Amino acid sequence: MTADTQIPRATAQRLPIYYYYLSSLHEAGIKRINSTEISEAIKFDAATVRRDFSYFGALGKRGFGYDVSALLDFFSKVLSQDKLNKVAVVGTGNLGQALMKYNFVHSSNIQIVMGFDVDPKKKELKIDNEKDETIPVYSIGDLKSELNKENVTIAILTVPGKSAQEVTDQLVDAGIKGILNFSPIRITVPNSVRVQNVDLTTGMQTLIYFVDNFENIKSAK
Amino acid sequence: MTADTQIPRATAQRLPIYYYYLSSLHEAGIKRINSTEISEAIKFDAATVRRDFSYFGALGKRGFGYDVSALLDFFSKVLSQDKLNKVAVVGTGNLGQALMKYNFVHSSNIQIVMGFDVDPKKKELKIDNEKDETIPVYSIGDLKSELNKENVTIAILTVPGKSAQEVTDQLVDAGIKGILNFSPIRITVPNSVRVQNVDLTTGMQTLIYFVDNFENIKSAK
Repeated sequence: MTADTQIPRATAQRLPIYYYYLSSLHEAGIKRINSTEISEAIKFDAATVRRDFSYFGALGKRGFGYDVSALLDFFSKVLSQDKLNKVAVVGTGNLGQALMKYNFVHSSNIQIVMGFDVDPKKKELKIDNEKDETIPVYSIGDLKSELNKENVTIAILTVPGKSAQEVTDQLVDAGIKGILNFSPIRITVPNSVRVQNVDLTTGMQTLIYFVDNFENIKSAK
Repeated sequence: MTADTQIPRATAQRLPIYYYYLSSLHEAGIKRINSTEISEAIKFDAATVRRDFSYFGALGKRGFGYDVSALLDFFSKVLSQDKLNKVAVVGTGNLGQALMKYNFVHSSNIQIVMGFDVDPKKKELKIDNEKDETIPVYSIGDLKSELNKENVTIAILTVPGKSAQEVTDQLVDAGIKGILNFSPIRITVPNSVRVQNVDLTTGMQTLIYFVDNFENIKSAK
């Protein structure tokens, strides 16, 4: 992939899914895979898979397919799996605490290094009782100084909807470049900041709506 | 909306977002809203908003816009907000427990009524210390009987990737109609079962990729 290749957003969103799938193939000792097999496993059509891979210059050979470990190496570089990304959780209620404990354990390149709360009841959160591992929890008033001290550029937003925009403004001011937004509102950020929304209630409402209105919804292509 | 109206999947996915936004307008005492204002708040373009609303027969009047409380009533019916949806959490590790405590508190129509685990360490999970509220946790062996006893048709899947498909098959066999899938794999289900994927690691990887490759990604239209 050259520096000026334009990757469509939809392709970028599929990248981590390819990566996860290839990792499990590799772990299972599978050496070769073709686009049809990939397509069946991850539920995107084979033409989409081939087109996505071609954006990255990864071209399968007819009758051979793709070399799993070469693809994996390649996607790992594209996804910067070798770079450690430090992440802060902002809002350490039930959901924030769970994410700190979850801590993307299966991902080698993502690490939650601190939490923030308006009213931190404890100065740290125990994430592993056996290993006595903890993550520090700071007051939101110390956001900028603590984030900058550790060079954190990614935040997980788990504050209530009513304070989400205010806290977002503080995160942007502190130099955060990406926000995984679990709050139920759509936050406004400058163009230089990326947001991914994970709205659990919306996801659940959508699911229920799909279940209740099965016949009335055109399936995704 | 008549019974044979075909709603595009993308429109259906925006419905809960409209609903949440309209609820907050209503709470704030706002009585009228036009598509441009809706568009600015929830970051879909105004033409999309108008087209979506038209699928449901909700047509704004030029120079007046939409009546908030009428729209809200309408979407509430479409989303079956008046029907209680009982949900089970399958896999009561850190994430599963957090979702049980989170329990969609801001949504009146979703209630987690039970949890399942291969090895339930406790027979119930305390979700509110002050009110002494608990949710029962059963063994996965009792999936079918317990789900059927309470008429649960929606499940949240928070088991590890390696057991996700096996547990999914058991859920399908038990009559589950919708699965909110937090496991990192893409599960396979019959056509009659709906799946919404919420992959936290993929979401985070995508965000990091967007942050790192800001200039190379075509923005979503």
